[in-house]
Amino acid sequence: MMQLQVLLVAGTHGNEINGIWLFEEWKKSSFLIKTHGIKTFQIIGNPLAKKAGQRYIHDDLNRSFKEDYVLSINSSNVEKIRANELLKLYGSSGQNPCQIALDFHTTTASMGSCLVVYGRRDADLALAALIQNKLGLPIYLHESDKKQTGFLVESWPCGIVVEIGPVGQGLLNSEIISRTKLILENALEQIQQVKNLNYFFPEKLIIHRHIKSIDFPRDEEGHIDGYVHSQRQSRDWIPLKKNDELFYKSNGETINYNENESYIPVFINEAAYMEKNIAMSFTKRELWDCKKQWKQSLVDLIH
Amino acid sequence: MMQLQVLLVAGTHGNEINGIWLFEEWKKSSFLIKTHGIKTFQIIGNPLAKKAGQRYIHDDLNRSFKEDYVLSINSSNVEKIRANELLKLYGSSGQNPCQIALDFHTTTASMGSCLVVYGRRDADLALAALIQNKLGLPIYLHESDKKQTGFLVESWPCGIVVEIGPVGQGLLNSEIISRTKLILENALEQIQQVKNLNYFFPEKLIIHRHIKSIDFPRDEEGHIDGYVHSQRQSRDWIPLKKNDELFYKSNGETINYNENESYIPVFINEAAYMEKNIAMSFTKRELWDCKKQWKQSLVDLIH
Repeated sequence: MMQLQVLLVAGTHGNEINGIWLFEEWKKSSFLIKTHGIKTFQIIGNPLAKKAGQRYIHDDLNRSFKEDYVLSINSSNVEKIRANELLKLYGSSGQNPCQIALDFHTTTASMGSCLVVYGRRDADLALAALIQNKLGLPIYLHESDKKQTGFLVESWPCGIVVEIGPVGQGLLNSEIISRTKLILENALEQIQQVKNLNYFFPEKLIIHRHIKSIDFPRDEEGHIDGYVHSQRQSRDWIPLKKNDELFYKSNGETINYNENESYIPVFINEAAYMEKNIAMSFTKRELWDCKKQWKQSLVDLIH
Repeated sequence: MMQLQVLLVAGTHGNEINGIWLFEEWKKSSFLIKTHGIKTFQIIGNPLAKKAGQRYIHDDLNRSFKEDYVLSINSSNVEKIRANELLKLYGSSGQNPCQIALDFHTTTASMGSCLVVYGRRDADLALAALIQNKLGLPIYLHESDKKQTGFLVESWPCGIVVEIGPVGQGLLNSEIISRTKLILENALEQIQQVKNLNYFFPEKLIIHRHIKSIDFPRDEEGHIDGYVHSQRQSRDWIPLKKNDELFYKSNGETINYNENESYIPVFINEAAYMEKNIAMSFTKRELWDCKKQWKQSLVDLIH
């Protein structure tokens, strides 16, 4: 049996600094975080970007875990090099093999605390269900988005992103740090309970399934020509009704929601997504039965 | 008589983008802003930093208007070059001489909308008094701070900074844009009324006078070892009482306010001030009589 080891990542984006701060304090006071006996490695995802006070140097590290990227070792691209390095150090066949990765992010959107899972891997869904059952956090299921791939956690057998907001880039906020600590400790507690086969696995999971992302309004030259409407700002997780205000254009025009279905917006006005042409994403709230195979997959991975 | 010309600056810090956005929309729709007949030049303070999505490239542009800086033309420092260039283009003896500069900033602190004046120049105080009388904005008088010098507006005969928050760096926010527009239009209206000698000059001015700035808690190696307490976060402009919580340290200790005087904190947790070792600044609220010479100075400048 391989020893269970969990990789904890903060600062995958160099300007999301609250998790980094927590990890650095943890280094100084080893008892700051209750690890529930789980062996962990805590790392700064992109230390060079952190130093520069930027999200990244060459490419978004959290889109750099692509097969063709991590295989191309002859590169001067900071994030390609770092993705390679992290896999060599902590990948499931690396020097310190970790089975699970937890990646702590912050957002400028008013998302509160939530979990993000990528695709529908059994072990991810099991761990998300356990944490949701304990803390009640919403889960954003990111899938069917061919433009967004290469996420860090996808390179580990089980991996979840924790998103906490709102907080500005490069800004320390006491509440964001407390919430990061709370979720980190509770996630490790759930993992420990699975390890001890002493856990309560819920019957149902509530997920917000990604449907699509929408861009800002653009002028004829492709420049952003409007911004998130004040009626939409900070209203993440609140279902949209037909004719709800989405954007305000510079010519005074309001752009309204015109879908027939009542989608739920998330990542409204996340500062870093402007370059990705994403003003917000639409999700559908669904109640899923938790499958036995999810639980089994997580149990197998941990034992 | 020299023609009255007003310099309007946004993006003196490249990651404070709401004012930039407003100016770019203004370029497309010339009637977007009511200028009240005042001739204006609207510019992006630091376009290279804007492009890079950073506050600055080499040095803070808003600390680069120092005599020794702007005289040293042989420099590869982006901000020294830009400070020089702006003075050549719009300085009071430049190509398009402007008598007044209005510099639009945003802050991550919950400052609401406010005016910042540097030192006690008569014309600055007169213009600030007129705008306060119209809109009720608080005025932060920055002075007696030898570490902080070289502000852009100080290089014009009359100049005021407008600070609006809270908003994250690099983030567009509809409310911040509206507030920028409101203050810009009202400032120009006041200037136009002085030009027409048809203004109401108030008798009193309320200012928040800078007393000192305080640093974050530090460990023995000088690293930041604590953050703004949740009881202090977002409480700009609210007077401090003895024993109020200021910081939370990683060892669990709370650092309290221990001054005898009830200072008023501003710029609490402004993200960009971490590098300047400023966690917040303390001010004293004072009611001043508006002096005739202030008004006269502004009238003389405009006529």
